[in-house]
Amino acid sequence: MRDFLPEDVRRREYVIGIIKRVYERYGFEPLETPAAENLETLLGKYGEEGNKLIFKILRRGEHEATGQADLALRYDLTVPLARVVAQYQAKLPRPFKRYQIQPVWRADRPGRGRFREFYQCDVDSLGSTSPLVEAELCGAVSDALTELGFKGFRFRINHRRRLTRLLRAFRIPPELHERALVALDKLDKVGPDGVAAELRNGGLGADSVKAFLAFYGLVQTAPGTYGADVSLLALDMSESASSNTMAESDEMSAAENLRAILELTKGTSAESRMHYDPFLARGLSYYTGAIMEVNVADLAGSLGGGGRYDNLVGMFSGQHIPACGFSLGLERILVVMTERGMFPPSLATSPADVMVATFDAAGAGPAMRVAGVLRGAGLRVMVYPDPDRIGRQIKYADGRGIPFVAILGEDEIKAGTVTVKNLARQTQRTYQQSAAGAAIREALTGRG
Amino acid sequence: MRDFLPEDVRRREYVIGIIKRVYERYGFEPLETPAAENLETLLGKYGEEGNKLIFKILRRGEHEATGQADLALRYDLTVPLARVVAQYQAKLPRPFKRYQIQPVWRADRPGRGRFREFYQCDVDSLGSTSPLVEAELCGAVSDALTELGFKGFRFRINHRRRLTRLLRAFRIPPELHERALVALDKLDKVGPDGVAAELRNGGLGADSVKAFLAFYGLVQTAPGTYGADVSLLALDMSESASSNTMAESDEMSAAENLRAILELTKGTSAESRMHYDPFLARGLSYYTGAIMEVNVADLAGSLGGGGRYDNLVGMFSGQHIPACGFSLGLERILVVMTERGMFPPSLATSPADVMVATFDAAGAGPAMRVAGVLRGAGLRVMVYPDPDRIGRQIKYADGRGIPFVAILGEDEIKAGTVTVKNLARQTQRTYQQSAAGAAIREALTGRG
Repeated sequence: MRDFLPEDVRRREYVIGIIKRVYERYGFEPLETPAAENLETLLGKYGEEGNKLIFKILRRGEHEATGQADLALRYDLTVPLARVVAQYQAKLPRPFKRYQIQPVWRADRPGRGRFREFYQCDVDSLGSTSPLVEAELCGAVSDALTELGFKGFRFRINHRRRLTRLLRAFRIPPELHERALVALDKLDKVGPDGVAAELRNGGLGADSVKAFLAFYGLVQTAPGTYGADVSLLALDMSESASSNTMAESDEMSAAENLRAILELTKGTSAESRMHYDPFLARGLSYYTGAIMEVNVADLAGSLGGGGRYDNLVGMFSGQHIPACGFSLGLERILVVMTERGMFPPSLATSPADVMVATFDAAGAGPAMRVAGVLRGAGLRVMVYPDPDRIGRQIKYADGRGIPFVAILGEDEIKAGTVTVKNLARQTQRTYQQSAAGAAIREALTGRG
Repeated sequence: MRDFLPEDVRRREYVIGIIKRVYERYGFEPLETPAAENLETLLGKYGEEGNKLIFKILRRGEHEATGQADLALRYDLTVPLARVVAQYQAKLPRPFKRYQIQPVWRADRPGRGRFREFYQCDVDSLGSTSPLVEAELCGAVSDALTELGFKGFRFRINHRRRLTRLLRAFRIPPELHERALVALDKLDKVGPDGVAAELRNGGLGADSVKAFLAFYGLVQTAPGTYGADVSLLALDMSESASSNTMAESDEMSAAENLRAILELTKGTSAESRMHYDPFLARGLSYYTGAIMEVNVADLAGSLGGGGRYDNLVGMFSGQHIPACGFSLGLERILVVMTERGMFPPSLATSPADVMVATFDAAGAGPAMRVAGVLRGAGLRVMVYPDPDRIGRQIKYADGRGIPFVAILGEDEIKAGTVTVKNLARQTQRTYQQSAAGAAIREALTGRG
């Protein structure tokens, strides 16, 4: 877990501001939930590996000595959302579209762009099964990344039911599906041989592993890319053969659903970025339909991902409320933007436009008053608190990037004036205190 | 701990936005720290009562079964700040002025405007002992409250060393001072007789309790207000008699310090709001100098408070870095603003400016494209995801306060047009899709 010094916070707020603005443009509304949830709300929602990574909070008071936990830190923003939607059903509109930008905590091993406390930027639509929902989420995420300055990003999309069929085609027994999905999820990082090894370690037979490698060889057109049409077709055959067993009577088939989503992204900024990936797995266990991930070159892992989870709200309320969402990882975005110098130069702002300097303790009162006058003129004003040597005070302002110093000596105080020093130009001029603010503002605008 | 639905979040962000803007006007810079600190960082900083209210996090992995805690949730923003300043000494400027607006957690009994998770809005100056620091903090807080629309608020100010002398005058032994301060801190809530009872329960002799009540009677001019000059004078006598024992050689005396602070608030918006209160105690144990609190009528407890804590950074780094800060409680501010209707009417915004409605599934693609065109015109646009009856869709928009519905029927799709319905006026008009955005914008501006 990390501290964010002023420069870090400014960068984070810049990114969050853009993401919020884009999500609001799509009609998503803000939601916030507490850091801690009841432990049982979180347990069993993230799969075996997830369960282990939940931070648990000790019961308070007399129970503390027992070492029992009753609360846990938020592990993602999706499960709390499902809990909220179940809990406030009567108060929330339907469809309900919300965004949520808050930290989550996982007791994971830290790595590049991977921390134990990290912010997720989630958008979710609840109440509709329409493929328009998935398409709109991809469009909104694509707009956000574009406004942040990202160029070469791509979405991969797959469907949980197609994955299930794929695993069945590999003759992987249902009780091992979760483990197999976790293995598949690592394909990006460890390659097909690595996944084959994971599958073997997970207790899968040699024929399953062989079937996986054969299928992988069939659909892979280049490292990391797959012939979308080929593989969609390849799976359509097995799908139509087994679709009766899947209770899809009033739902679209998985392939039709994916095609509809891809079709609806046309006309959004995500259109040319959509790629079907038959191996995309996503680690979390609550997904039921389409799953998506967005990647950029040179970053192992994704910038974010999401998918449809039609049964999660029902786990809390008993009522079936379909849902689909997408989560962007703030720290990943910041890592890439920092490495690629994607922040606007105007962002590295100094703490103030002008600093008021004084010669002695008697100057403190007049300095406070002049600072008030300058703030009234719309300036950000810092008062140097101690009567240090004036050279030291000016050096401080210069080192902090504060462009102007307002000096209040005995003469200025008597005359109701102030001497304003422009540090970049090494010029200075004395103004009536009431006129100094406008003069500094004008000079600042000229500089910009 | 609570959930914040969209309307709540908008109100919170409105308040936070104003507070941030004011603090930045004073040259304070943003800082953020993680939710969890090492447990030992927090223990022993908040007094006996505080220690009990810290939420502890279980150690992970093999140690989990032992029930031991190694991390704890942030209890306030001051101790993490002191830890940060000690840790990043070389990277941080001196003086360093930061603000921090983040949640803290206390296992306290919840009450009105009092929750287990709550946001503090802190401003602190580090590196200077000048009374200008305290005065500037009061000025900044006063400006923030004024911009939020608060009128009848008042600052109470006291000094920890004067309190110590007061306790000595009551013949309270040093080992009972902390408990006595906690008792005094409740004067607002329980009155003088309540404090007397607390003191008695805390093991204090009858003569101490009597001395407290006598002094209280001497300086109280009206319930909750004290004759500032009288009491400052009253204490000056005992102070000058004992000042040699207090190692104040190069520091101002406590009374001089308070007078300097009050003098320097002149010319700030806090000037007329400052009141000396010889009983103001503040619960936390790390204060060393001036302590402040800001109150409004009709709210038990304060909107916020703070003070000087010159030794806290040294507890982490060994290096003496003087510090002073002020913390506003966001939930308290929200409770009062909600009860008094202090939010601007423009804040209750709808989720979108316009909603796109469709008649059937075939309309989804054209709806996505029209939505993109309208967003390009700067509008916030929601697409209703399902082809429900058009009346139901319009009712949804109306219920959500969305002022316009863009209807895409078969004819409109063929003609490249869109019918825009103004829900308030019950009028509608058909536009070329490329012209609809400008027309809606114009109508929105007219409405405003």
